[in-house]
Amino acid sequence: MSKQILVLPGDGIGPEIMAEAVKVLQLANDKYSLGFELSFDELGGAAVDKYGVPLADETLARARAADAILLGAVGGPKWDKIDPAIRPERGLLKIRSQLGLFANLRPAILYPQLADASSLKPEVVAGLDILIVRELTGGIYFGQPRESKVLENGERMAYDTLPYSESEIRRIAQVGFDMARVRGKKLCSVDKANVLASSQLWRAVVEEVAKGYPDVELSHMYVDNAAMQLVRAPKQFDVMVTDNMFGDILSDEASMLTGSIGMLPSASLDANNKGMYEPCHGSAPDIAGQGIANPLATILSVSMMLRYSFNQGAAADAIELAVSKVLDQGLRTGDIFSAGMTKVGTAGMGDAVVEAL
Amino acid sequence: MSKQILVLPGDGIGPEIMAEAVKVLQLANDKYSLGFELSFDELGGAAVDKYGVPLADETLARARAADAILLGAVGGPKWDKIDPAIRPERGLLKIRSQLGLFANLRPAILYPQLADASSLKPEVVAGLDILIVRELTGGIYFGQPRESKVLENGERMAYDTLPYSESEIRRIAQVGFDMARVRGKKLCSVDKANVLASSQLWRAVVEEVAKGYPDVELSHMYVDNAAMQLVRAPKQFDVMVTDNMFGDILSDEASMLTGSIGMLPSASLDANNKGMYEPCHGSAPDIAGQGIANPLATILSVSMMLRYSFNQGAAADAIELAVSKVLDQGLRTGDIFSAGMTKVGTAGMGDAVVEAL
Ligand SMILES: CC(C)[C@H](C(=O)O)[C@@H](O)C(=O)O
Ligand SMILES: CC(C)[C@H](C(=O)O)[C@@H](O)C(=O)O
Repeated sequence: MSKQILVLPGDGIGPEIMAEAVKVLQLANDKYSLGFELSFDELGGAAVDKYGVPLADETLARARAADAILLGAVGGPKWDKIDPAIRPERGLLKIRSQLGLFANLRPAILYPQLADASSLKPEVVAGLDILIVRELTGGIYFGQPRESKVLENGERMAYDTLPYSESEIRRIAQVGFDMARVRGKKLCSVDKANVLASSQLWRAVVEEVAKGYPDVELSHMYVDNAAMQLVRAPKQFDVMVTDNMFGDILSDEASMLTGSIGMLPSASLDANNKGMYEPCHGSAPDIAGQGIANPLATILSVSMMLRYSFNQGAAADAIELAVSKVLDQGLRTGDIFSAGMTKVGTAGMGDAVVEAL
Repeated sequence: MSKQILVLPGDGIGPEIMAEAVKVLQLANDKYSLGFELSFDELGGAAVDKYGVPLADETLARARAADAILLGAVGGPKWDKIDPAIRPERGLLKIRSQLGLFANLRPAILYPQLADASSLKPEVVAGLDILIVRELTGGIYFGQPRESKVLENGERMAYDTLPYSESEIRRIAQVGFDMARVRGKKLCSVDKANVLASSQLWRAVVEEVAKGYPDVELSHMYVDNAAMQLVRAPKQFDVMVTDNMFGDILSDEASMLTGSIGMLPSASLDANNKGMYEPCHGSAPDIAGQGIANPLATILSVSMMLRYSFNQGAAADAIELAVSKVLDQGLRTGDIFSAGMTKVGTAGMGDAVVEAL
């Protein structure tokens, strides 16, 4: 039976890096007889240009019907001044929320070949392998009410709401524990329970879920301390689970510890492991169209997709091995380049991975 | 005319480090004829033990009457299980809010003598000197409504509110610009304006305030990117201004870039530069009572107090110079110790600063 994959290249460097990821996906498709059928559409600024909105209803319908979604990146200065209601990011938030993609998996892995790229000392980050599990469809990103208004005294004010329900916390905590169970068996739940009511519930529910995972060692950490500990001694962490806003901040911090955010994929999953896969990095409008962007995070997103949504571990492993091989060969895009290596462009890197595969 | 200083040693290592800071303060008082009168009271867990609440009304009254407040640190496992309404941190939040200490200044400075302590590569952090200006009496820390409740379907849920008014944003932005003006003339305002309504107002008001500071270069950065950039290239920043929650996270991250959080003081100021001064680090209950804690952050908080609340630049400079001297002499507490240096305890370090002064 054929599987439908919806490809959304997005904005900026999105189309360039996606072209390479699609090459790799097509090859894996043939080689492992995966039966994938690809279709293409727009999200973000490209969708604003084509449809007038960052996520068209027909695109959303296609996304619902697909078995998995591969996304490039969205946003750029071109759409900075438009009505906030149709900013590119709105499309991203809407597809996450409408598809119920509540579990965002963001690995921060240091590739041994790229150890030098980190701004941290080698001994602090060597072998780093953290998985951040971020709640993606709740919290302050979507909380109602939110409003901007003028007070009686003529002053403007605006507010947002940070809500979490027990079931929202429980399901993301379960993902955190499930991931920890198949990794290093350590889960650190991050909150601000010394200040926030939502964090107090978060901590209580995580404690309850922990009862079902006696084999996983649970710890709690305040978000300010977590931001510090990631800098001080990041290897203390295995899996971290946290809310939408804290996860946004900490996963970006953690990914930068590796110095090579151009290498990091991510997955956003629903309750049935249907998912959207995308690189951790953004649309990098400053280098768009130059053919120099690093396609590896998107290629590794393909591998995550094979692993999590299609249970094709062998094909996923093969892609990861191919990426490792091209790094061993010394091929580097500009963002991960260092002296003595061979500089290649986006297509050169994509072709090398195809070759290695 | 005499000046009243209220000293609140707090919990954990608080009393130990405060004893050293008071020695230094008394000496500066005599040497520069500052006319300070010190009085002592409790905050946090120590206040819970003495008064049954983490900030007693009489302590608050004394704090109001004082010209400045010197605080150690609050909190500890002893009070972890008590009623959340009287947790030690509540005392801290209440004194901040009741005294209107809306401007929290958190410098992240790398002492050349301690460059090795950082987990970052020397070239990334050498000469680091960032000032984070954190809004301290608004936002999600104090926003109403906040509630924990049971829904009709029997599920628990909890929420917090993140409000900001124009005037709250304006006054903290002004502090940010004022600080940038007397430093490197660069201000980076951090928000999440691509998602939050409160951040959109934040950005708009900061833009308005910027009109009065044409000599300061303003940039805006999303909080997730700021968390990354602090790791990647922290020296790009001069002054950062941000809201209460983001400031909590980013200032801890920034302070850890130096590797020596035991060295960093902070100030919390009201509209008239009346302030509360405290080390950035916490109450470190694990090492409390052992006489090994680093008193330098508290001693440097005294120096900040002299500078910001009493305009005593010469005395402040002298204390900072004395601290620099003891570092040059190779004296180190355990937290900043490295091979070849001389290990000293809390009192040993305090005495050395007194000696150098
Ligand atoms: C673009 C933005 C809305 C988004 C987020 O904050 O979730 C991005 O930063 C991310 O982390 O995927
Ligand atoms: C103790 C806690 C409430 C406090 C805060 O979050 O403000 C602390 O982390 C700080 O940064 O001073």
